Amino acid sequence: MAYTVGIVGCTGAVGQEMIKTLHRRNFPTASLTLFASSRSAGKTADTPFGSLTIKLFSVEAARSCDVVFLAVSGTFATEHAKNIAASPGGAIVIDNSSAFRYDDDIPLIVPEINMKAAENKTLIANPNCTTAIAAVVLWPLHQQYGLKKVMISTYQSSSGAGAAGIEELRKGTALCHTKNSKEIMNECPATAFTYPLAFNVIPHIDSFQENGYTREELKVMWETRKIFNIPDLPLSCTAVRVPTLRAHSESIIIETRDDITAQGARELLAAAPGVLVKDDTSQNIYPMPLNASGCDDVEVGRIRQSLIFGAKGLELFVCGDQLLKGAALNAVQIAEEMHKMNWLKRVGESKE
Amino acid sequence: MAYTVGIVGCTGAVGQEMIKTLHRRNFPTASLTLFASSRSAGKTADTPFGSLTIKLFSVEAARSCDVVFLAVSGTFATEHAKNIAASPGGAIVIDNSSAFRYDDDIPLIVPEINMKAAENKTLIANPNCTTAIAAVVLWPLHQQYGLKKVMISTYQSSSGAGAAGIEELRKGTALCHTKNSKEIMNECPATAFTYPLAFNVIPHIDSFQENGYTREELKVMWETRKIFNIPDLPLSCTAVRVPTLRAHSESIIIETRDDITAQGARELLAAAPGVLVKDDTSQNIYPMPLNASGCDDVEVGRIRQSLIFGAKGLELFVCGDQLLKGAALNAVQIAEEMHKMNWLKRVGESKE
Repeated sequence: MAYTVGIVGCTGAVGQEMIKTLHRRNFPTASLTLFASSRSAGKTADTPFGSLTIKLFSVEAARSCDVVFLAVSGTFATEHAKNIAASPGGAIVIDNSSAFRYDDDIPLIVPEINMKAAENKTLIANPNCTTAIAAVVLWPLHQQYGLKKVMISTYQSSSGAGAAGIEELRKGTALCHTKNSKEIMNECPATAFTYPLAFNVIPHIDSFQENGYTREELKVMWETRKIFNIPDLPLSCTAVRVPTLRAHSESIIIETRDDITAQGARELLAAAPGVLVKDDTSQNIYPMPLNASGCDDVEVGRIRQSLIFGAKGLELFVCGDQLLKGAALNAVQIAEEMHKMNWLKRVGESKE
Repeated sequence: MAYTVGIVGCTGAVGQEMIKTLHRRNFPTASLTLFASSRSAGKTADTPFGSLTIKLFSVEAARSCDVVFLAVSGTFATEHAKNIAASPGGAIVIDNSSAFRYDDDIPLIVPEINMKAAENKTLIANPNCTTAIAAVVLWPLHQQYGLKKVMISTYQSSSGAGAAGIEELRKGTALCHTKNSKEIMNECPATAFTYPLAFNVIPHIDSFQENGYTREELKVMWETRKIFNIPDLPLSCTAVRVPTLRAHSESIIIETRDDITAQGARELLAAAPGVLVKDDTSQNIYPMPLNASGCDDVEVGRIRQSLIFGAKGLELFVCGDQLLKGAALNAVQIAEEMHKMNWLKRVGESKE
């Protein structure tokens, strides 16, 4: 059994990672079709699957695939995702945008946690990058000790704003060596970000909401609650952009229902799927973007007893590649699990 | 009344800022003497006070000043500070190292908060940069609403590691545009930091302690408790180095004894000395190193009701220049206040 796979938005940072991830993880791909807007359609893309001509997106063409990954805006997904997935004859759609994440009847999936919610579904939402990275670490802790409070402060990389974000940071940083800030603002105006990110820290990702939180911050709360199926989990987030190229870091404080120790958490997490414990302060081993970039597993370290919640709390630091676990990898893992469970089978067969 | 002023460690990042700060704030300086080790002694320094020949440090020479600022290591301060300050005939010593911060009989001062503790003292400790920046914002909130819990995650700049830290980040970042990471590691090995900081985030500042926290993180707890005179204040910190040149940022969550609102906190902080409220999300106004660098006031913004502690909690984001409020400015402010209260007077007169 192999599937015809489509990627919509193949030229963006996430779309590019999806192509690579499908290939290196040997997803059973009968054929890969790349879709983009008229700006890129007709161009040739060099991929591990060979040289592919990018096709102009249409709902009909996307519907002819077995599995379609959407690496597009929420607006685009809102307009087209349901039509691509519509039965009979539609594709299984895995959407990386936030368009459907908060719809009760659309599953929001982290495969290590709640794969079962995707059964019999044709449209599946992929979580926000910050959510997915925290969730794989928090879920085992929740199952064992019960989460009562979660407080997160993030260190999010430029690639969270896509390829344009990386480029803007690179260009701005290069200019910093020879130009003053006014010249930099002229030559490299902030467009991917609200202010220049080079050598700066910006506590503003996505739009501000009435309660003073950004949508990015609330997404982490909304999505973690949905994925964990704890509708009232007390969780707060401060989402901050930092001048890194790739991989998000998160400083996390938890209060637990049961007593928890750093060593107990370390042992539990060492056995957890998708998690890599990097926590030996005597050897200066802890999570960092430098190492987590390009890795599938989310790194966790700096695990220590909370100075606030005592025996019922921990502090920890996580770092994960937000283009991988935070986006492309998680999406491909969803398809892999659906394949293993034969949930893609009917679709694959129906179109052969 | 003007004072003979000495700065020991005048060539470092903090020493340099002390010279500038004394001048631009018109501290009543009869004469300025710069002290350094034999490596720099004899060289000429161009300062706003004119061209000065750097003198070789000796306790005797330092004792002949009215006020001596120490911008040196803890080891150096431990060896010499008490001898410089020893009565009779010693100087008032304001020490920027951590050597004496935790001694019960040596005051640790943030002038906006606990100036009175410096009365009749000749050796005064200047707090850790992260502590001072948080403290000026937290103190008014504590006085009005009572702090029950404080949780801090920091975004600390390279200059926290001095001039060498700035230089290492600049050099490493420049190399990133043309070299791969192996070449960078060879050409610019991490010495100021444990790992390359360019485009990275390092959750490790100062040495690790047995409980898994770094000394930097515990300093913030120890020092805030001492400055606020709340020996058991629950406070925790995750201290993280980010690739910025100057100004530390801090994501802070507080739980309070009394009900608190974002607007109430904003109004209170707008009237607080040393604090600049930058908090208008509708205009994308919030604290950032880009603006806070070089400014005396600590910026505070992103003030919002806690999603964890409800009516009895807030989240906020602060940003302050750690070479100024976090070091040189606070030290000079201590001397200014002592001058205003005539606590320097006897010294000044005794040596005229």
